[in-house]
Amino acid sequence: MPKSRITIIGTGLIGTSIGLNLCARKDRSYDVVGADRDRSAARHAKKLGAIDREVDSLEEAVENAGLVIIAVPVMAARVLLQQLGKLIQPGTIVADVCSTKADVMRWAAEYLPEGVHFVGTHPMAGRESSGPGAASIDLFRGAAWAVTPAASADERAVGVVLGIIEAIGAVPLYIDAAEHDQYAAAVSHVPLIMSVALFRMVRDSQGWEDASLLAGPGFKDLTRLASGDPTMAKDIMTTNRDAVIHWIGRLQEELSTIRQAVELGGQPLTDLFASTQLDRDTFLANPPVRRMPAGVTPPSAQDAIGQLFVGGLYNKLKEMPARLAVSPRGDPELRRKLGIPDEPADDEP
Amino acid sequence: MPKSRITIIGTGLIGTSIGLNLCARKDRSYDVVGADRDRSAARHAKKLGAIDREVDSLEEAVENAGLVIIAVPVMAARVLLQQLGKLIQPGTIVADVCSTKADVMRWAAEYLPEGVHFVGTHPMAGRESSGPGAASIDLFRGAAWAVTPAASADERAVGVVLGIIEAIGAVPLYIDAAEHDQYAAAVSHVPLIMSVALFRMVRDSQGWEDASLLAGPGFKDLTRLASGDPTMAKDIMTTNRDAVIHWIGRLQEELSTIRQAVELGGQPLTDLFASTQLDRDTFLANPPVRRMPAGVTPPSAQDAIGQLFVGGLYNKLKEMPARLAVSPRGDPELRRKLGIPDEPADDEP
Repeated sequence: MPKSRITIIGTGLIGTSIGLNLCARKDRSYDVVGADRDRSAARHAKKLGAIDREVDSLEEAVENAGLVIIAVPVMAARVLLQQLGKLIQPGTIVADVCSTKADVMRWAAEYLPEGVHFVGTHPMAGRESSGPGAASIDLFRGAAWAVTPAASADERAVGVVLGIIEAIGAVPLYIDAAEHDQYAAAVSHVPLIMSVALFRMVRDSQGWEDASLLAGPGFKDLTRLASGDPTMAKDIMTTNRDAVIHWIGRLQEELSTIRQAVELGGQPLTDLFASTQLDRDTFLANPPVRRMPAGVTPPSAQDAIGQLFVGGLYNKLKEMPARLAVSPRGDPELRRKLGIPDEPADDEP
Repeated sequence: MPKSRITIIGTGLIGTSIGLNLCARKDRSYDVVGADRDRSAARHAKKLGAIDREVDSLEEAVENAGLVIIAVPVMAARVLLQQLGKLIQPGTIVADVCSTKADVMRWAAEYLPEGVHFVGTHPMAGRESSGPGAASIDLFRGAAWAVTPAASADERAVGVVLGIIEAIGAVPLYIDAAEHDQYAAAVSHVPLIMSVALFRMVRDSQGWEDASLLAGPGFKDLTRLASGDPTMAKDIMTTNRDAVIHWIGRLQEELSTIRQAVELGGQPLTDLFASTQLDRDTFLANPPVRRMPAGVTPPSAQDAIGQLFVGGLYNKLKEMPARLAVSPRGDPELRRKLGIPDEPADDEP
């Protein structure tokens, strides 16, 4: 079996955590190879048992790889996809785990040669610290993991990626790339900005020294995301700018509403806090159910990983639904749902 | 020893957690009595071993109590202080654990009879859930615990409260009440509003159903405070309105600054994230050191609790610093530090 190899490019927090899961499987029929621009990160991942072997060049990294996982910040993924375009063999499955999806999907379509199966993904998990040292085999346990297959990806490729996600203990979630970016802006990217804003607000005040003495677990929790990797944060904002700006505006409107309620005081203020508490507790008690396209049953983890390199056997996955093939960026229904004013569609085909 | 009794009024999260600590001491020379408007909460606290006995009336609650701890939302504390004023015996120590301090200190001065020693306090700790069922003996471990003694409190009273705080494993922090409220608005009350704003922003969007599927640990952490007790939240905002409104404005300015940086993109955006990460990591790695007035050494927990009802032995505590006696609400230096525009001083003496 010449292609029984999974390659992870980027052995930071996410890449190393994936590697820990892949290498922990006892009955595995594949090697895990790792590469990182920062060789010490790759060596660290090897030491942790997250990869079997570290390689120095992209050529070596993709050689005989059946699956290549791109685990780098978004803008680095662009360069990487360009480079991979010249090296990678048809038939290879390529998946990324970047924080934004629309640009990555466009770059993959542009740079990867025909016959390469690209599956965009994004695990909704993270940690305050970055780098391989922060990795954990449990990082993705129970987390939603967005999956945005390219039109170029065949069923087998999608099945392999789904199977790996399930094997890692996460919950795959089909979603369109543009839709992902809008929602991720709301539940992930703007929260990051909120963390940064809160920390800066207190840090830059002249009362910082005294105020920080009073800072308890609430302040620490709410500023947690401000300790994330700055390059990753900048890349997220760069590739999801419009959505992020839209949701910052929405957040400011919410703050103004609450500010008015605080000024008003009395029962309306209590009602505001009480209804939010009720809604959040309901959300936590009844977590939303993942959406699977009708008729699709993902392969079992055992099936998908065990048969990763056998190929062609993923009849379990029914036809991808038509909605995955179209770009809903300009979809008026989606725009309406998101409360975005009508604008001319962007430059996407 | 007729007065060897500590009474906790309000057996919610905080009151019950304090009770668990007080009752856990093996060599204790006091009983712990609990009362709650909601009798089932008091019964629950008793079942948990947080109080020795639950009582039904305020009269019973304060009878023979050497120390009364008020652990109710701020506005309920006002009513309670009025009622206690008619019942409580001179010599009793009264401490509260309310989230805001200036109004509570004013009410205590107004309603409590001469000879009652009032010590305002506020533990900087909390939890997503409220009620006695959420209580924990570890809730305050390592937490800052603000202490704002009234002019009426003698050294023994302050020493007893400090000793209990240390016995519970928290770190007492002397601070002026008005200063506390300003800083708590920044590090605690506005974060609470931020949590509520973020949750409402996503919850009220038409994409909620899909967005919530993508919500990961970041969203859950950042909206955690929105699940707190609505009455407590409303009371905080009511009694700290000006400071909260000031800091909401500051937060909105920060968000606008970051929004502009996102629009601009490039190196300045990276720098913004990188400098915030550095500052926050520095803050976590080198936590601020608590400030004790020069010359003051708090009594050991053993001393304070063991001698709680012996009285008069707290010579260890030197004279309270002069700054604790004055109200800095109108202090131009404090206003400058907080970046508050000059305004006429409020109605406090």
